Amino acid sequence: MDFTLTHAGLVAVEEALVAAIDSEVPLLNDASRHILTSGGKHLRPHIAMLAYLAVGGEDLMDAVPMAAAVEMVHTATLVHDDINDHSLLRRGRPSVHARWGRTFALLTGDYMFAKVYQLMAPYGPAYNVVMANACTQLVEGETLQAVSAKAGEIDRETYKRIVALKTASLFEASARMGALIGGGTPEEVDALADYAYNLGIAFQVVDDILDVIGDPETLGKPVGADLGQGRGAFVAQGERAILSLQPAAEVAVIEEDDPIKRMMAKLRTSGAIEMAQRQAAEMVDRARRALEPIGPSPARDELEALTNLVLERDR
Amino acid sequence: MDFTLTHAGLVAVEEALVAAIDSEVPLLNDASRHILTSGGKHLRPHIAMLAYLAVGGEDLMDAVPMAAAVEMVHTATLVHDDINDHSLLRRGRPSVHARWGRTFALLTGDYMFAKVYQLMAPYGPAYNVVMANACTQLVEGETLQAVSAKAGEIDRETYKRIVALKTASLFEASARMGALIGGGTPEEVDALADYAYNLGIAFQVVDDILDVIGDPETLGKPVGADLGQGRGAFVAQGERAILSLQPAAEVAVIEEDDPIKRMMAKLRTSGAIEMAQRQAAEMVDRARRALEPIGPSPARDELEALTNLVLERDR
Repeated sequence: MDFTLTHAGLVAVEEALVAAIDSEVPLLNDASRHILTSGGKHLRPHIAMLAYLAVGGEDLMDAVPMAAAVEMVHTATLVHDDINDHSLLRRGRPSVHARWGRTFALLTGDYMFAKVYQLMAPYGPAYNVVMANACTQLVEGETLQAVSAKAGEIDRETYKRIVALKTASLFEASARMGALIGGGTPEEVDALADYAYNLGIAFQVVDDILDVIGDPETLGKPVGADLGQGRGAFVAQGERAILSLQPAAEVAVIEEDDPIKRMMAKLRTSGAIEMAQRQAAEMVDRARRALEPIGPSPARDELEALTNLVLERDR
Repeated sequence: MDFTLTHAGLVAVEEALVAAIDSEVPLLNDASRHILTSGGKHLRPHIAMLAYLAVGGEDLMDAVPMAAAVEMVHTATLVHDDINDHSLLRRGRPSVHARWGRTFALLTGDYMFAKVYQLMAPYGPAYNVVMANACTQLVEGETLQAVSAKAGEIDRETYKRIVALKTASLFEASARMGALIGGGTPEEVDALADYAYNLGIAFQVVDDILDVIGDPETLGKPVGADLGQGRGAFVAQGERAILSLQPAAEVAVIEEDDPIKRMMAKLRTSGAIEMAQRQAAEMVDRARRALEPIGPSPARDELEALTNLVLERDR
């Protein structure tokens, strides 16, 4: 992805993140820094800043604490997710959970949530309401996913709800807050929020696809992990897709002892991947159309280019 | 404790709490409600509201969302603490962890943190900065405690830091925000914050004492629990007190097989309890003196009365 337009802002975001987590308790500092400096894509702050620029915002630094807060929320949920999923690897490094243990991973996630709050506090109520709603929806999405995983079943409607809540809501909030800070009109703010919402859904669907067909080396984490936790929402949908597309008897017999690998092989040959890819392409189309009310600018071009990058990414 | 002055406000707080956690994800609703309606003392919202009244605040309802947020923070940390401490009982009921399992307890705590944010968002930056700092300190205190428990040692300075961070900071924030909303002068706001800070320390020291000498029936949870987790900060201090007060050879031999019960018996006979009680009384004195700049009112009287109740409580 091309970060030229937002480069200075993103450098400032990284500095703001590291500064925010500075604590007199060394462990919180170390564990937060470990995950925050592990080479995340910074896609949410990037979108927040492009939205800011696309409505004519002139000083990217105005959006820095908010963009840092958005990245902090995302990172905090990764730390807590890795506890619940027993994930040992994250972005090619040991997860906080693996390195510091469950108790400290839980506290590190809590600490980062408190820091989100601290970064956002100086903005007024309008922004904090948007952020609070996004945080709420994010946790609701994670919970709905865990409930479905536990029940061992998921339907397409629930899958969509999960993706909207756990991923699209924070994408949407990022663009909405960026456009608000940049002084966008209500129409522009809504358009950019709509764009980011749809992009977020596409992003998550691609993420779920990569868990099945991605390259572990490129991803920096094992594939099949979500499958292994019975939690990958797409995967569950894929299973259902297998069942609906092919009578049970016709499902190819896969020579594979490991049940996870067997399920992955089944998904690859079932047409479920292609179905999900079509779904992601459809959401990306919607994201692109949502940009119509936004006047031409390099930032708008970059937002448009981003849709293809999200669709074609391999990590 | 006498809740006459704040009764209407606390009823509204309870309603605000239940309304806030309403979710389209039934599990989050159920688990949050389970702990929020389990008969907590509501001491923090009570203090917030008394501070509001003591500076001349006239409509208690102004302070309700803030007071609910303070109780929500406290409750969220209980949910996460119970995961880390493997506690099965809380306020005489199964903990969220015991009833819904670790994953959902983690998510329920996160959900309640998001709701804190939502309740606080409408207040301006000044309030959110206070709350964000309190949340940060709370997590720092919990972490420092876990670090000390893991190391198996704690000195008196660290004990004080832990109690200040994990308990006194939220007491202080409650009074500060209540006094701010009530329109207190800077001197009044600082006096009430100072009062609550010292009361918070006394409260936590008494809590740690009750873990050793309290009645499990009255407390609604087993005693020795903190001791069992190696986490009770006072307890560690007590151990140290034993060592400093008595040469090892003179420590009475306690006929008790269970190591927790043996440690509790040692603490009861070592003078450590009395030392902690003196410490709590000293902090309560400071709290009382901090009230000097506050003009006479029923709310001020109640704040003063509260100091004795905190000292003499048995649950």
